[in-house]
Amino acid sequence: MAKGKVTPELIEELKKIVGEKYVYTDADKLEPYSHDEVTDPHYVKMPQVVVLPANTKEVSEVVKLCYDNDTVMVPRAAGTGLAVGAVATFGGVIISIERMNKIIEIDKQNMVCVAEPGVTTSALQSEVQKEGLFYGGDPCSGDSCFIGGNVATNAGGNRAVKYGVTRDQVMGLEVVTPSGEVVTLGGKFRKNATGYMLMHLYIGSEGTLGIITKVYLKLVALPKYQQDLLIVFNNLDDAIALTPKVMNAGITPVCVEFMDNASIKQVEVFLDEKLPKSDVGNYIIIQIAGDNEDVLMDQCEKIVELADENKAIDSLVADPAVIWKSRKAYLEADRARSLVFSMEDIVVPMTEIPQAVQQISRLSKKYKIAMHCAGHCGDGNVHIDILKDDLSQEEWQKVLPQIQNEIYALVYKLGGRLSGEHGIGYKRASKLAHYTDPVELCLMKDIKRALDPKNIMNPGKVVSINEEVPVEE
Amino acid sequence: MAKGKVTPELIEELKKIVGEKYVYTDADKLEPYSHDEVTDPHYVKMPQVVVLPANTKEVSEVVKLCYDNDTVMVPRAAGTGLAVGAVATFGGVIISIERMNKIIEIDKQNMVCVAEPGVTTSALQSEVQKEGLFYGGDPCSGDSCFIGGNVATNAGGNRAVKYGVTRDQVMGLEVVTPSGEVVTLGGKFRKNATGYMLMHLYIGSEGTLGIITKVYLKLVALPKYQQDLLIVFNNLDDAIALTPKVMNAGITPVCVEFMDNASIKQVEVFLDEKLPKSDVGNYIIIQIAGDNEDVLMDQCEKIVELADENKAIDSLVADPAVIWKSRKAYLEADRARSLVFSMEDIVVPMTEIPQAVQQISRLSKKYKIAMHCAGHCGDGNVHIDILKDDLSQEEWQKVLPQIQNEIYALVYKLGGRLSGEHGIGYKRASKLAHYTDPVELCLMKDIKRALDPKNIMNPGKVVSINEEVPVEE
Repeated sequence: MAKGKVTPELIEELKKIVGEKYVYTDADKLEPYSHDEVTDPHYVKMPQVVVLPANTKEVSEVVKLCYDNDTVMVPRAAGTGLAVGAVATFGGVIISIERMNKIIEIDKQNMVCVAEPGVTTSALQSEVQKEGLFYGGDPCSGDSCFIGGNVATNAGGNRAVKYGVTRDQVMGLEVVTPSGEVVTLGGKFRKNATGYMLMHLYIGSEGTLGIITKVYLKLVALPKYQQDLLIVFNNLDDAIALTPKVMNAGITPVCVEFMDNASIKQVEVFLDEKLPKSDVGNYIIIQIAGDNEDVLMDQCEKIVELADENKAIDSLVADPAVIWKSRKAYLEADRARSLVFSMEDIVVPMTEIPQAVQQISRLSKKYKIAMHCAGHCGDGNVHIDILKDDLSQEEWQKVLPQIQNEIYALVYKLGGRLSGEHGIGYKRASKLAHYTDPVELCLMKDIKRALDPKNIMNPGKVVSINEEVPVEE
Repeated sequence: MAKGKVTPELIEELKKIVGEKYVYTDADKLEPYSHDEVTDPHYVKMPQVVVLPANTKEVSEVVKLCYDNDTVMVPRAAGTGLAVGAVATFGGVIISIERMNKIIEIDKQNMVCVAEPGVTTSALQSEVQKEGLFYGGDPCSGDSCFIGGNVATNAGGNRAVKYGVTRDQVMGLEVVTPSGEVVTLGGKFRKNATGYMLMHLYIGSEGTLGIITKVYLKLVALPKYQQDLLIVFNNLDDAIALTPKVMNAGITPVCVEFMDNASIKQVEVFLDEKLPKSDVGNYIIIQIAGDNEDVLMDQCEKIVELADENKAIDSLVADPAVIWKSRKAYLEADRARSLVFSMEDIVVPMTEIPQAVQQISRLSKKYKIAMHCAGHCGDGNVHIDILKDDLSQEEWQKVLPQIQNEIYALVYKLGGRLSGEHGIGYKRASKLAHYTDPVELCLMKDIKRALDPKNIMNPGKVVSINEEVPVEE
C-alpha cells in the first residue's frame, strides 16, 4: 500500500474490519460528510472514504490499520459542529461513530449514565428523565448532536450557568489512541487524584488526540419546576449588569441569555411578528428551576425587582415557548437572510460584554456589514453572526478575516478568548495560532506531538504541528 | 558549576535573585521542609537548600537558573500534603511559594477571586465571605494549607458533593514552566473552547509539570443557612445507601461523611466521652445549606424520613460543633494512638463503599492490624487509617505494602482508583505505576516527557520517567 494514501487496498482492509456495507465510497453517500454546520462553501471537502465501525473493537482495528499505514483519520460524530472539525480537510479516512448509539446503562444509585458516543444528546436527556434524573449538558443542537461530539468539543449551551459545560458532566471516557490502543480514563467515581487527568485533555480536543468510544456522565435529580422570564432594557450595559446582581443575590439561574437590538429586529422580520419593545429593546432571558414552587416565585419577584433597579422597561414571566421564541429563532433568522455567514463564539469576562458588543456595533458600521449579537451572557459567551448578505465570495473572503482580526484583538484585550464553546477545528486554527500566547501554543504543540507523534489523528485541526507541509489546502 | 548539583555557586546565584535572607541552608531552617504531613520517618529527607521567591518574576528566574544548570526543583506550598509530594526526595532545590501570599483581587461582579498561591485556604474563604461571597473548595487542612497547593494537588474535602473539588473552582492559572517561562491559562471567563485545556493538566499534577504562581477562582453566593445531621445505622450498607436516596430526592447536600464503628470507638477513647450508639453504630453526617430556612427544614425532615426507611437507629439535628465532633477528631484520635500510620485515600463508585469497608475489616483481622475507615461517602472517597501501633519499623515496612496491595487490588476490581484527593506524590508513585492501566501510564509518561523533557521538575513524583536511575533513594 502507498503509505499515507487512501488506496483501494486500504479500502478493502477497512471492509474486512467493519463489513462492506459500512464503508462508503460513493459520492452520494459521502456528500453529507463533506461539511459540518458551517455554511461557507470554502470549507466543504468531499472525503474519499467514510467508515462506520460498530463498536470499540472495530474502531481500534480501523485506527491500527490507518496508523500502520500512516493514513490520516478524521473522527466524526453527528457533524453538527461549527468549526470545521469533523471534515476531511486534509484527506484521509473519516471514522464515523454514528452506529455506536446505545445507552449502555443508567445507574440510578451512582447517578451515572454510561453511553456509546453516537447517542443523540436529546435521546440521552429523555432516557435519564424517565428515571427521574437529569443530564445537565444541553447544547443548542441537542436534537441532532451526539454525546461523543459534545465531549470531543466540550460543547456548552444554555444551561451552563447552573450545570456547567459538557466537561463538568464527564466522569469517565473510553478513548482509542492514535495507535489504536483502548484506554478507560475515570469511571463511576466522583473524585480522582490518581495521576495526570488525561480525561480532561481529551475533553474538548476535537478528535485530534484520539477517538472517544464510551462516556460516563454525571446525573443529577430532575428539578420539578421551572420559570422563564423575558426582561427588556433600553441600555445593554444595564441588561448585562443584571446577571451578577442576580447571582450575588444567591440565585443561580439555569441560563441567562441576551439578544441585542439588531438581532431582535432581524428575528422580527423572520417571524413576521411584532416582538416586545423591539424598537429599542435589548433582551435578557432567564430560566430558573427548583423543587419548591414558592421559592421559585420568590426568586422571580426578586429578579424582576433587581431588573427594575437596573432600569428594565418590561418584564414578562410566561410560558417558555413565548419567552424563548425570539432567542430560538435567532440563528434561523440570520440564516434566512444570508445563507453564508460566520458565527463567532467569543468569550469574555461577564462585565466586558457591553464593551465587546459596542465595539462590534462600531465594526458593523465601519465595514458596512450586518453583525448580530446574542448568546450566553451568564458565562460571557457571545455569538456574533457576521452576515455575508450580497457580498461576492471574493469580497467576503477578503473582508471577513479583517473583521475577525479586529474582534479577536479586542477580545484578548478584554481578557477573553476566541472560542467559548464552538471550538477551533480547522476554521479557527490559524487564528488560534496567531492569538494564543506563544508559550501556551508551544505547550499545546508539545501535547499534540507527544500523543499523536505521527500527526495522523485529525491533523491541522485545533493546533497544527506541521504547518509547512499540509497534505493539501 | 557542576551540572545537576546544588553547589555553593548555585546557592550564590539563588541569593542574587531572591536576596540572601530568602535562601535557607541552615539545618534548623531546613528541617520544617524535610517532610509533609506523612508521619512515617521513612519519607523524611532534609533538603540542601530552600529558596523563597517573592513574586512570579523571581520564581521564573530561579527556575531558569535551575533549568540551565539541570538542577532538580521541588515546588512547595504549605507542606500539608499527605503523599510526600513536596519533599526533596531526590535532592535539588525546594522552591517555596509561601511569601507569595496576597489576595490580588476579589471581583464581585465577575464572581472571581485572583490570588497568589501562598494564601491560606481559610484566609481566602474568610476574605471572600466579607464580600458576601463563598469559595466552594474546603480541604480538611484549610486553616494551614495554601490555595496553590490545593490546586497543585486538586485537593478535595468535605464540600465536594455540592461544590466539587478544587478543579471545579479553578477558572485560570498562571504557571511557570520547567524552563522558566510564564504562561496564563484561562482567566476571568467561564467557558473556554480555545484549544487544549492545559489548565486542567496542571491542576492535580503535584508540581511535576510547573509551578503555579497565580490562581483565578470561581466564587458563588454565600448560602444563608445550614443544617447538620448525624444519623446512626447498625448496618453500614444501610448507611451508605442513604446518599443516593437523598440525592435522587433532589437534595444535594454540601457534604455526606461516614465513620465506621471502629473509628467511632477510637474517637471515643481519644475524647474520653460517650458518643451516640457507639457500641454498634456507623455514622452518617450530612450538611445541607441554602437561602430558605423552611426549605432547609423540609429537607431535614425528608432526610430523616429516608434514613428511617433505611433502618436508622438514631437521627440528631444539632449544632455543627456537636454533629462534627467525632468526625473532626478522627485523624487526631488515630495519630494519638499511633504516631506512625498510613492514611489511604481510595475512591470507588458510591455503591461499592460497603463492599470496600467489609473487605478492609477482613484485612484488619487477617493482618491483626487496626484499620479505621471514614470519609466522604457522598463521592465514594474512603480514608483508611492503617495503624502501625507497636510494630517495629522493619515489620511495618514489610507488612504495609502487602496490605496496600490487597486494598488497591480490591479497589481497582470495584472500578475505583487508589487516590481520591490526596494524590500520588512519592508515597504512591510505585503503586500508581503498578495499578494504572499500561496504556494510561504510558500516556502520563508521554505528557511528563513532553512538558518536562529534562525531568527536573519534581522528578520521581506521580509518574517516574527515569525509574532506572533515580538521583538517590
